[in-house]
Amino acid sequence: MNKNVVKIGLMGLGNIGVGTYLVLEKERETIKKNTGVDFEIVKVLEKYVDRVRPVNVPLNKFTQDPDEIFNDPEIDVVIELLGGLHPATDFMLRAMEHGKHVVTANKAAVAHSYELLRETAEKNNVMFRYEASVGGAIPVLTALTNALQANRFEGVYGILNGTTNYILTQMTDFDMSYEEALQLAKDKGFAEPDPTADVEGHDAANKLSILISLCFGERVRPAGIPTKGITKVTKEDILEAAKSGYKIKLVASAQMVDGKLEYSVKPTKLPFSHPLASVSNELNAVYVQASEAGELMFYGRGAGPLPTGSAVMGDVIEIGKAIKKNAAYDLVVAGGKRE
Amino acid sequence: MNKNVVKIGLMGLGNIGVGTYLVLEKERETIKKNTGVDFEIVKVLEKYVDRVRPVNVPLNKFTQDPDEIFNDPEIDVVIELLGGLHPATDFMLRAMEHGKHVVTANKAAVAHSYELLRETAEKNNVMFRYEASVGGAIPVLTALTNALQANRFEGVYGILNGTTNYILTQMTDFDMSYEEALQLAKDKGFAEPDPTADVEGHDAANKLSILISLCFGERVRPAGIPTKGITKVTKEDILEAAKSGYKIKLVASAQMVDGKLEYSVKPTKLPFSHPLASVSNELNAVYVQASEAGELMFYGRGAGPLPTGSAVMGDVIEIGKAIKKNAAYDLVVAGGKRE
Repeated sequence: MNKNVVKIGLMGLGNIGVGTYLVLEKERETIKKNTGVDFEIVKVLEKYVDRVRPVNVPLNKFTQDPDEIFNDPEIDVVIELLGGLHPATDFMLRAMEHGKHVVTANKAAVAHSYELLRETAEKNNVMFRYEASVGGAIPVLTALTNALQANRFEGVYGILNGTTNYILTQMTDFDMSYEEALQLAKDKGFAEPDPTADVEGHDAANKLSILISLCFGERVRPAGIPTKGITKVTKEDILEAAKSGYKIKLVASAQMVDGKLEYSVKPTKLPFSHPLASVSNELNAVYVQASEAGELMFYGRGAGPLPTGSAVMGDVIEIGKAIKKNAAYDLVVAGGKRE
Repeated sequence: MNKNVVKIGLMGLGNIGVGTYLVLEKERETIKKNTGVDFEIVKVLEKYVDRVRPVNVPLNKFTQDPDEIFNDPEIDVVIELLGGLHPATDFMLRAMEHGKHVVTANKAAVAHSYELLRETAEKNNVMFRYEASVGGAIPVLTALTNALQANRFEGVYGILNGTTNYILTQMTDFDMSYEEALQLAKDKGFAEPDPTADVEGHDAANKLSILISLCFGERVRPAGIPTKGITKVTKEDILEAAKSGYKIKLVASAQMVDGKLEYSVKPTKLPFSHPLASVSNELNAVYVQASEAGELMFYGRGAGPLPTGSAVMGDVIEIGKAIKKNAAYDLVVAGGKRE
């Protein structure tokens, strides 16, 4: 089989769905030139057909019935961008059972059902990739599981949530209160109307759960990670830390201490000289200590329609290349397995 | 074919060769667990058999005859760590012609003979990988060519040479002259006895040539890159820049300006707030502007036996996984092609 058009079923046309659609539209020629493969989104599962969006999706691509995607023999890859646990997890499993490769940006679903999703992918001999679920555009999962396969990880430390990093940066740089900075983040679109999942650290805990699985081969569910958000951080805390040469960041960390894995999400004082201390505003970064490579940091946009769409399409393209070569080269995530 | 031991011929047992050998020895169990593949270095081309080294290589593995590696049907992968253009380039080509996959850390050879090496790999249906040639342990080539395939690159900016970054950091932080900082770098092992290739920018130009090929699909030989080193930078220059909020770094850059690619290696003033400005001492980093992903930075150790060995083994492992699956999934470099 030498397949030059890979057909995609897209589930969800919210912000990230629109971003993914746009990236494919804008970069079709780049992708074709880089890979020799063309991609086409042939069906879109989305109930709000009439919503005004910055993309022009032909009406005949819309469906309200997920079975139209599962049962379409032409569809090779399902992109799940519904978010949340249900029905997203079930839809991914069903797609795999129908022989579709699956790509998602859904950190909650991956964090909660990691083994089940991977096992179902393996059992059905399909690829399952989720680079966009941690760090948005930053190709950190690929790096951790491919290029660094000859390393044990000693520690992983992430600024994994753009909302909280934006708020803390504003509090630090402009002497704002938490409430003032939160309001500004809402005004700028960096915080949701209900920011709980971000400011209480749950979003970061989902992402840390995934990083722990990949780096340490241990399964820790998000609810099992001691998690403290930033709602109690005051501008006095920040000022006092600064006097001693520290910045306060919401750090999601996991590290081996005497052979035992310790992990948490919490506001953390980082010395000014630490590479993570200079990660400002809505940017994200992951810093790792690896046994042979030493210290590494990966930095970039952790959210937003186009950056996230870039990561989703990166995964889709890897699958497309494998389909083209008829080589299910790497089942499951970007590269190696860490368990 | 389902091959569980991948056999390696190693060319060169200098610092990087020793580092690679050590990484494989130390991480054999990690690698086996991550990938299900075992690796064995079965022959080592090296004339100085008796040199004292921090690894214990059995005497019967040494050879002085490269044909013993080319003609050994058991050897799947040749790691070229001789450095320099000759005979390294010729040895890589001959290895490919004998059906061996090739991994190298040799930036000079890759920069000078990029097309020939890639074409020869394709013609012989073998994989050719060189992640370690740019940025040492930092998996930047993999990131640029895999995860970011749905992007056009607008600019690539690297601190690609640890020696010069160490010298400039010492001059900046401790008010040293160039000569004092160079001497310190030599004492600490961050500069060679003859530091010309580093301090004049030629090493960075080699690496930039490779980045240009991968990011922009253009071939610019290192000699065609306007290159200025750091030997004329004074502590007064650094002080004056600091007064206006800038740090001086040796930046290798390539960017699209009105549809035309501009490139250079030269001492460059970066605002304190630029992510590259906080890359200190011997550390390296690559900062890119991508059309969809936005800004990204990859940071880590650009040199040293273990970090470089980590990157070499990362490439070897990718090849081993492909051999195991009998799938030459990605010919040539880590992932896509950019031309």
